[in-house]
Order: sequence, then C-alpha cells, then structure tokens
Amino acid sequence: MMDGAVPVSEFTQAIWHKIDTKTKPPGSLGRIEELAVQIAELQQSLTPRMDRCQLTIFAADHGIAHAGVSAFPQQVTRQMVLNFANGGAAANVFARTNGVDLRIVDTGVVGGPFDLEEVLGRRLGDGTANFTGQPAMPAESAETALEQGRALGQDGDWDAVAFGEMGIANTSSATLIAHKISGLPVAKLTGRGTGLDDEALRYKTDVLESAACRTGDLTPLETLAQYGGFEIATMAGAMLGAAGARRVIIVDGFIATSAALVALGLNPSIKPALVFAHRSDEAGHSILLNHLNASPLLDLGMRLGEGSGALLAWPLIKSAAAMLNEMASFEDADVTDGS
Amino acid sequence: MMDGAVPVSEFTQAIWHKIDTKTKPPGSLGRIEELAVQIAELQQSLTPRMDRCQLTIFAADHGIAHAGVSAFPQQVTRQMVLNFANGGAAANVFARTNGVDLRIVDTGVVGGPFDLEEVLGRRLGDGTANFTGQPAMPAESAETALEQGRALGQDGDWDAVAFGEMGIANTSSATLIAHKISGLPVAKLTGRGTGLDDEALRYKTDVLESAACRTGDLTPLETLAQYGGFEIATMAGAMLGAAGARRVIIVDGFIATSAALVALGLNPSIKPALVFAHRSDEAGHSILLNHLNASPLLDLGMRLGEGSGALLAWPLIKSAAAMLNEMASFEDADVTDGS
Repeated sequence: MMDGAVPVSEFTQAIWHKIDTKTKPPGSLGRIEELAVQIAELQQSLTPRMDRCQLTIFAADHGIAHAGVSAFPQQVTRQMVLNFANGGAAANVFARTNGVDLRIVDTGVVGGPFDLEEVLGRRLGDGTANFTGQPAMPAESAETALEQGRALGQDGDWDAVAFGEMGIANTSSATLIAHKISGLPVAKLTGRGTGLDDEALRYKTDVLESAACRTGDLTPLETLAQYGGFEIATMAGAMLGAAGARRVIIVDGFIATSAALVALGLNPSIKPALVFAHRSDEAGHSILLNHLNASPLLDLGMRLGEGSGALLAWPLIKSAAAMLNEMASFEDADVTDGS
Repeated sequence: MMDGAVPVSEFTQAIWHKIDTKTKPPGSLGRIEELAVQIAELQQSLTPRMDRCQLTIFAADHGIAHAGVSAFPQQVTRQMVLNFANGGAAANVFARTNGVDLRIVDTGVVGGPFDLEEVLGRRLGDGTANFTGQPAMPAESAETALEQGRALGQDGDWDAVAFGEMGIANTSSATLIAHKISGLPVAKLTGRGTGLDDEALRYKTDVLESAACRTGDLTPLETLAQYGGFEIATMAGAMLGAAGARRVIIVDGFIATSAALVALGLNPSIKPALVFAHRSDEAGHSILLNHLNASPLLDLGMRLGEGSGALLAWPLIKSAAAMLNEMASFEDADVTDGS
C-alpha cells in the first residue's frame, strides 16, 4: 500500500495505523482505504470532515464549433444552461440524488448574459475565437479567467468540490490543451465528443492537428490563450483555488482532466488534492489518466461531462472518510485481530 | 446497447426511447443507462421507484474453520455480530453514509442465540459440521434455510435489497459451492479470504480439493447440505424471495455470488433482478463473474464482505432510476437534439 521508495511521514503512518486497527482485515477495503489516507493527509487530520460537496458547472462557447467538429449545434450550450437552471439535466439529477450542491457559472456563452438568479456571470466574451487561424482569446482573458476561477474555488465552506463543464465543441479545445501540455499526439487525444461518426472524427482530427501546428511550445497560460476554453481556463483557476483551501477536488472526465493538466502545469503541488472520479469513454481520457498515473474510482462508460462522473464518485469519497471517522477498532469492539 | 439476437420487447423499446430523448447525447451515460433499463424492466414501469434499500447481513459459523483455513479465529464471527449490533463495522458506516437500512440475522453463530433486539434469530444450528469428512448440514436444514431466507427476502417494502455475510471460513464454503455448481476448478476459485499467506493458501486449496472429491455431481440443494454455509443457504433463499417481489438484488462479493449461483441453479429466471455490485479482490470472484457473464459496477480492490461493496453500489442504482424519472427530455427543455 505504501511505496517503499518514498519516505512515509509519521502522520501518514498514524493514518495507516488507525485504518489497520479498524475491525476488518488489513487492506480489505482496497481503494477506499487509499482514499481515506489521501483525505486525511490533505486535511492533516485523523478525523477529516467530508460532509459538504459542491459542483460548479462552468459553461462557455467555442469558436471552433464553427469548424464543424461537433455533432450538436452551438445553441445547445445556451439551452443546456437553461436546463441546468431549471434542474432538468443529468448533473441536476445526480447532484440531488447524491446530496451535492450545484452552482452554474457562465464564463462566456454566446448570446450575452443570462438574466437568471441561478446563473452566476463570470463572462470573458461571447464565446472564444475560432482557434484554427488565431488565438482563442487574448492572454489577459486567460489570466482573468484563472483569477476568477481561483476566487470561485476558494469561496464557501466545502469539504470537496467537483467541477463540470458545458460547451459545444469543448472536447476540441481540451484536446489541444492536453496535447500542448502533455506532448501526447493530437490523433490519440481526439475523440468522438458527443457522438461523431468515423468520417467526422477523421475530419475533427485533421482540423485539430492543423491548429496544433500553428504554434510551437507553449506555457500553460499561452496554451489557454491559444486554445482555451473560457470554461476550461476558469476551471483550472478554480482547481488552484480549491487546492489552496485544502479541498478534495473531484476531477470529472476528459475536459476536467485537461483543466487539471493546466492547473498542475501552473502549480504541481496541487496533485494531492485531486481525486479522479471516473474513466470517461471519450478516447483521449484513458491516455491522459495514464499520463498522470491516475487510477479513477469509476469506469462506467460515461462521456457526458457536466461533472456527472464526479457526482457519482462523491458517495465513495464520503464513505472513505466515514470509514476513518466512524468504524470501531479491534480494541473498541473487543474483536480478536488476525495477528 | 441491445443484443441484436434477442428480440427486444415493445416495453424495452419504450424505455430506451425515454432514455434516448433525455437531454444528453445517446449512450453518454454508459452503464447508468443499462442499469436504468434493467430497473424499469424489473418493475415493468417507465417511472420505477428506487428510494428504499435494505442490507441484511447473515451470520453463521463453519465447521471447516477447525481445519485451519482462515487467518482469523472462529470467535470473530460472534464478536463481529456484536460489532454490527453496536454500529461499528464497515457495513454500518457505509449503510449510514449511503442511506441504507441494516438488518442482522443470526443463522447459526457458535455460542447460542444472541439476546439482542438488533439480531434476528433464524438459527439452523451452532455452526455447521466440518465438511472435510461429512455433510455440513442435514438436507432438511438446507431446505429450512432456503424457506426462511425466502420469507426474509420478501418482507418489508424495499425497492432494492443487498445481502451481506459474516462467517469465519466462509470463503471455503463458498468455494466448494461455486465449484460444484459451476464446474470451475477448486484451485482457481480458492483465494486468500481474510489474508492467508502463500503457504496457508496452498494448504487451504489442498483441504478444499480433498473435500470436493468426497462427492460427485450434486443438485444445488445437495450442494448446500454438503458444503454450506447456513448464511449462504439463507442468503440464496432471500435472493429467491426478493426476486419474486421484483426487487433489485445487489450482489456483493465472492460469497454473495456463490449464493447467487445456488439461487440461479434453483430458479434461473431470477437473473434480471441481479445487479453485481463490485469485483472483489478475492481470487475466485472474477472467475465467477466471467462464468455468469456479469460486469460489476465497481472495481475497488475490496474483499471485506458484510455487503460492503453492495452498499457502495447503491448510490449508482438510485442515480440510474433518478435519471429515468427526473431528467428533462429535449422537448421538455427545448434543447436541440443532435440528429
């Protein structure tokens, strides 16, 4: 359970001791035990609190949608924000079912601000520019997005935060961000998004490979400016803010993982806060997870986004902390241990 | 998503139509969609109820424990029943965290009945006989266990039921039950239980192979009498009762799966009620799951029993039904679909 090459702190040893004296064979709760250790280390507490979780959905539109890389038309982004506000999307349903608070943030949906109490405005434009021939946004917008995200990731009193996204064509943006930061090939990272057929997938790959060639090596900030994603840039900032507040960050699927790559590029020390929720069916996600040496908790063939995978992982995270806090030890329960 | 070789009923088509018109790309919720179909078919309802779940933990002792096949001494069964009654075990913690009711049933723990309100008595003896040289129980006891289990599986008003177990040495019983019913080799089904080392595992395998040779082909009922498991026999009955009441049966790990093999052997038509919760780390479980062509929902390296894996799968099952019941359609939400 512990990597012999890494020195294990006394505190970490104390967590494992607490887990190993619980009334169960050592190691018999598998990943749940590792998750409990991660949570306890993050909060530096043997009795971590893991009661309150919030999902923030960041929405934005993408100029690259005009290159015909998505199965759905751009207006769906705006329609889905209204669906979130009305409580009818998968994310709403899973949030309600699993006791997670939900917040909606418009970071730049085409058609102007929403005049709705349920939608928080952090707009950086009316959609990004089409990055096939130009940067998606000015560098200042990427910086503002990170700053606004950082503030959003810090506020409230949450033990865990999940970040979801909505933005037609945002798998294209995420693919190029992931490519530029990881160095993994565009063709391997490009997937079907919301449901492209083989021919459309080949076309999307061509468009993205060509857009990738437009630039050379880039910093994470330059990558955001060239190929972001207002919602991806803001989400990356929110991850930095949440990690600073020592919150568990439940990383959803492909797009959230590309935002995590940006956040890790800007501050590698946030890694211990990240819990990878699920393995998305979007082709590039498994490759990114391998690149990050991350084992997701769930593998359910999902590829929706919206934070839907993160919401389904939340009960596991809550259960892991409850195990550490509430289970009796062999001594408490007067149970004979196996040693 | 549908097997072309099997005719799909109009009702099943209606469920898929309902799912495919939800505000998400078709198929994008993967296993959650398949789970929703299974639930709707079981209840024969497009608006299935999936609110109430109960875990019953069946406890019993095993004569085979005296053959030295377990890392823990037999008295731990009784101690753990007290731990369940006091709310301190993993099953208690996961049940509380995930909103599942818990019931404890003593089917034959060594030391006589429990004088506790929290423990329901359905005792069939003071532990089974050591099956290395004789049947574990008389055929009448196996029949009574099935009958009592059937009644327990039917009572109450639950949408889903999970069954857990506690019984030192019960992986040995489960291994022989699984072997006799599936025909899979004993050596492949034998695992480390609560934590045997390599030498102890070889010894356990020898003991079990020898015990298996004591008998030839057996019916499921004869298998229970020869090698059960009061708790396994009662659990098999409970699965039959619960399936009759059209409840989702959340099948936990290796031992629960061996009980499911017995129940399927007695009545193959219960298959649509079974949801396999997780892939246990106990060696034989993956092999049994393959034999049943079953894909579990979770794979977290757990091997505790008690229904702990089933409890962690419950939020996914609840979320699947909520998706079907609560998500808006493209038409409801005025969202443009991708076709």
